[in-house]
Amino acid sequence: MAEIVKVAVDAMGGDNAPSEIVKGAVEAVRESSHVKVFLVGGEAVVNAELAKYTYNKEQVEVVNATEIIETAEPPVMAIRKKKDSSLVKALMLVKEGTCDAYVSAGSTGATLVGGQVIVGRIKGVERPPLAPLIPTVTGCSLLIDCGANVDARPSHLVQFAKMGSVYMEHVMGIKNPRVAIVNIGAEEDKGNALVKETFPLLKNCPDINFVGNIEARDIPSGGADVIVCEAFVGNVILKMYEGVGAALIKKVKEGMMTSLRSKIGALLVKPALKSTLKAFDLEEYGGAPLLGLNGLVVKTHGSSKAVEIKNSILQCITFTEQNINKKIKEKITMEEN
Amino acid sequence: MAEIVKVAVDAMGGDNAPSEIVKGAVEAVRESSHVKVFLVGGEAVVNAELAKYTYNKEQVEVVNATEIIETAEPPVMAIRKKKDSSLVKALMLVKEGTCDAYVSAGSTGATLVGGQVIVGRIKGVERPPLAPLIPTVTGCSLLIDCGANVDARPSHLVQFAKMGSVYMEHVMGIKNPRVAIVNIGAEEDKGNALVKETFPLLKNCPDINFVGNIEARDIPSGGADVIVCEAFVGNVILKMYEGVGAALIKKVKEGMMTSLRSKIGALLVKPALKSTLKAFDLEEYGGAPLLGLNGLVVKTHGSSKAVEIKNSILQCITFTEQNINKKIKEKITMEEN
Repeated sequence: MAEIVKVAVDAMGGDNAPSEIVKGAVEAVRESSHVKVFLVGGEAVVNAELAKYTYNKEQVEVVNATEIIETAEPPVMAIRKKKDSSLVKALMLVKEGTCDAYVSAGSTGATLVGGQVIVGRIKGVERPPLAPLIPTVTGCSLLIDCGANVDARPSHLVQFAKMGSVYMEHVMGIKNPRVAIVNIGAEEDKGNALVKETFPLLKNCPDINFVGNIEARDIPSGGADVIVCEAFVGNVILKMYEGVGAALIKKVKEGMMTSLRSKIGALLVKPALKSTLKAFDLEEYGGAPLLGLNGLVVKTHGSSKAVEIKNSILQCITFTEQNINKKIKEKITMEEN
Repeated sequence: MAEIVKVAVDAMGGDNAPSEIVKGAVEAVRESSHVKVFLVGGEAVVNAELAKYTYNKEQVEVVNATEIIETAEPPVMAIRKKKDSSLVKALMLVKEGTCDAYVSAGSTGATLVGGQVIVGRIKGVERPPLAPLIPTVTGCSLLIDCGANVDARPSHLVQFAKMGSVYMEHVMGIKNPRVAIVNIGAEEDKGNALVKETFPLLKNCPDINFVGNIEARDIPSGGADVIVCEAFVGNVILKMYEGVGAALIKKVKEGMMTSLRSKIGALLVKPALKSTLKAFDLEEYGGAPLLGLNGLVVKTHGSSKAVEIKNSILQCITFTEQNINKKIKEKITMEEN
């Protein structure tokens, strides 16, 4: 049997901390015996939450932290000043090697900065990208980068393509994943300066399956497995998913409430509709890994409920068992030779 | 009564040319006596299409053009070589002053290039942006720029904000339209280099109603009236609308077909749903104007049917009657002082 994977969880991060975070941790250890969760946060409140559940006590440890980093705080300053915050202490557990992975629904900025400053980059990785899974009509794709590095350079995007390929192949089990770069047209000569410079580099990259440009329109239908873009564009894509999805579902609901006939119909379609749309809900896919660090750092939505925390923790098991970081290191180093 | 507005229509452009284009033109003149349409294209085929309809003959004139610019042709070369194409000849009608406006469902690239080279920019306008209306939960917003100028500079974005404000106020009738810049966070210090440089310029602009950053998530819910961004990001936003919309509607349909119960429900909700979703369909909003030119240039979807052509032609009437270009010129010149 594989070794136990140790996950540091920021119990105080996110809109629903600590209750939903603790609940998610309990659900994760109930679901898998391969994981041990270190809940980092105010000892008293975390223990009070834990007391509500029965679970294997050997799989959960509470690590006390007296401070909390708020979402609005400037990240660099927060990381530097709040040494006893749940976020910093959880990252320290990864840095020291006590834990393999870190999960937080807290400040994105502080997680991105802390991940780089405290946990540190894998040698050779220029910039660690934030890479969420996004739902498509046929399954899911990896959107890389999505918020970690604005104003990226072509060499960064090439590394994103490599790291994303490793992730999709070994965590998601997609053989020879199709890599595409986001562009405003399908033709090779389209795009802005960054994309035009990056395209030939990706084309000449021997160890990825580059399929060319992808227009944003073709992302939700599953046009590629690894969607490479710089962080500003990635962030816009991710948030358009949420925004258009929410607006359309609102319109569908309104449409169903316009007449007696449609109201009766709505009652009949509701259960089936709910389960289909669930497959298209971003939150079902757990957190986004910040790839290329000496350890796994996972950022989940600020509004995460227990199910997303649980999924994020379980995701750490595959990541660690599959030795993803060793594989990323090999692929990045291959490029350097 | 206002003068007749003259619109040059590229009868050979788009997937459904010439039949749907001619049909749309006929529908426009049937709906308004304020417009005269110049249908530019192969005389024989256009006349054959026209023969199918009854309409006021004085409102339609056919202008012969023997060549067609295909979508895949490199735009600059096509404009230069195909002097007798429907696209070039229609733009020439605007340049000469025979027509006030131009509508085409043909090559976007050739329309953007031809608009600038043939029709020419308003003095003071640095770059003419493509600015489609996009549906929101509460109405519609103007997305500016959306494909004309990649790698834009801050001064371009400020002009986009001004031109967009004029359009939304005087064509769409929105008093003091809210202008926002697309960013990856709501805070003032967020963003890439372009947005960080542009933000204070917009903030200090006295003649627009700048409301700050908008995250992509808040665009479909109607967070601002004028959505300012550079073309690459605008293109991604527009195409995510199409992509997420299509994917979700596919999922909704699938969901409704999963059981007998939901199939019956689907029959009952269908009519109500259809009419609500229509309000969220990009194609209902007619074409996108290329603002800042000496005349109005409107690009409609390549897949335009008659209704979109008709709406685009009718849109030209308001634009011309409202003297939008004079107002744009005044606003741009104001900036220069």
